[in-house]
Amino acid sequence: MYKETKTRTIVKTISWRFWATITTTALVFLFIGEPEVALSIGAIEVFLKLIIYFFHERAWAKIKFGKSEIEPFVVWLTGLSRAGKSEIGKILTQKLKEIDLKVQYLDGHNVRKIFSETGFTKGAVNEHIKRVGHLASILEKQGIFVIASFLSPYEETRKFVRELSNNFVEVFVSTPLEVCKERDKSGLYEKAIEGKIQNFPGINSPYEQPKNPEIIIDTSNASYEKAAQEIFSYLHKFIK
Amino acid sequence: MYKETKTRTIVKTISWRFWATITTTALVFLFIGEPEVALSIGAIEVFLKLIIYFFHERAWAKIKFGKSEIEPFVVWLTGLSRAGKSEIGKILTQKLKEIDLKVQYLDGHNVRKIFSETGFTKGAVNEHIKRVGHLASILEKQGIFVIASFLSPYEETRKFVRELSNNFVEVFVSTPLEVCKERDKSGLYEKAIEGKIQNFPGINSPYEQPKNPEIIIDTSNASYEKAAQEIFSYLHKFIK
Repeated sequence: MYKETKTRTIVKTISWRFWATITTTALVFLFIGEPEVALSIGAIEVFLKLIIYFFHERAWAKIKFGKSEIEPFVVWLTGLSRAGKSEIGKILTQKLKEIDLKVQYLDGHNVRKIFSETGFTKGAVNEHIKRVGHLASILEKQGIFVIASFLSPYEETRKFVRELSNNFVEVFVSTPLEVCKERDKSGLYEKAIEGKIQNFPGINSPYEQPKNPEIIIDTSNASYEKAAQEIFSYLHKFIK
Repeated sequence: MYKETKTRTIVKTISWRFWATITTTALVFLFIGEPEVALSIGAIEVFLKLIIYFFHERAWAKIKFGKSEIEPFVVWLTGLSRAGKSEIGKILTQKLKEIDLKVQYLDGHNVRKIFSETGFTKGAVNEHIKRVGHLASILEKQGIFVIASFLSPYEETRKFVRELSNNFVEVFVSTPLEVCKERDKSGLYEKAIEGKIQNFPGINSPYEQPKNPEIIIDTSNASYEKAAQEIFSYLHKFIK
């Protein structure tokens, strides 16, 4: 919630008075042709209207009428490990903050303090994603944009999260497996292929491609910046 | 985030023009004593200034200067089972919503979807409370008032949550054990005394009284409504 400080009202009052008194003085001069009278009226108007305008503004700052809240979105980035989800998510978060929106970025790292992952089996992964969905929905209801970057390999839970949200944008970061493997410097894919990591989506557990995502982005063709811009433009149509 | 709709600007423009044109017309009449000229200037001013004022308003709606965000608080209600924490918390939440603040009420029931309680030992309880603290802190950083009602028997974790928050108000709902027992229709205290429930604070596990709470309320002397009003008045000093 923002409130209008008195300083804002004072500066705005002066700004308005500048334009308004010039107009009045010119108008009076055009009608009666006497510069002294025009300037006198202008001078008195300055003081009188400064006071009236100030209180008019203070009164309107308390009136809710016609102030509409911007409806937030839950942007859900899904895709394979190393597809570029978190990179895109962080740039998008920044872009939305720059236009003064309230934004919460969520990924596996920063939700860990609230609830740790309980495992990597289908059941555990789905449980985790559902919790993220509840958290995202609480934030959305409070007027906050949520940018969530989670591998979330199962259509069923992505659908669950969609239904919890009022405005849901599913972004399928569709970077092909081969590109993701190449990008992976930490050797996760290698270990999964060797069987040292179990339940690794795309290697030894499924990744179900989204059926009807709002946006599809393949970061082997587009930069993270361009990808974030595409989502930003999509949202911008609704925010305006 | 609120935005000013065009409708608001139009209505505000007309409201301002009413007061301003009456003033200008009166002023011109006082100076030159000719009602026709005064009314002519007033008539032209109406149209001219309506337009200028409208665009002045639209421009200022885009200017952030002097809009200050109201700093939210985390209100933490602690006390024995049946002390009246959630009753007070719900009334307080309502009161804050009525003055257009964004408020999230948290208690054991509504956080369960995000993270279930893992047990009632000291370690498990503290872990749970710390998670609530992280959630509260995320919400507070996004400009949302948090009203949290949790038994939270250990000073150590209440201190942990306090340190995570920017503005923390610890409310010790100090209703005596005997009154809480009497109020308890669900037989929880009875079962704890019989040893059928373990780790029940005040009976077979400790409740550490807050050392320096901002507010102490004993609901055996005060109604829930009065208690909520006391917290509301405390917060109101900072919100104004």
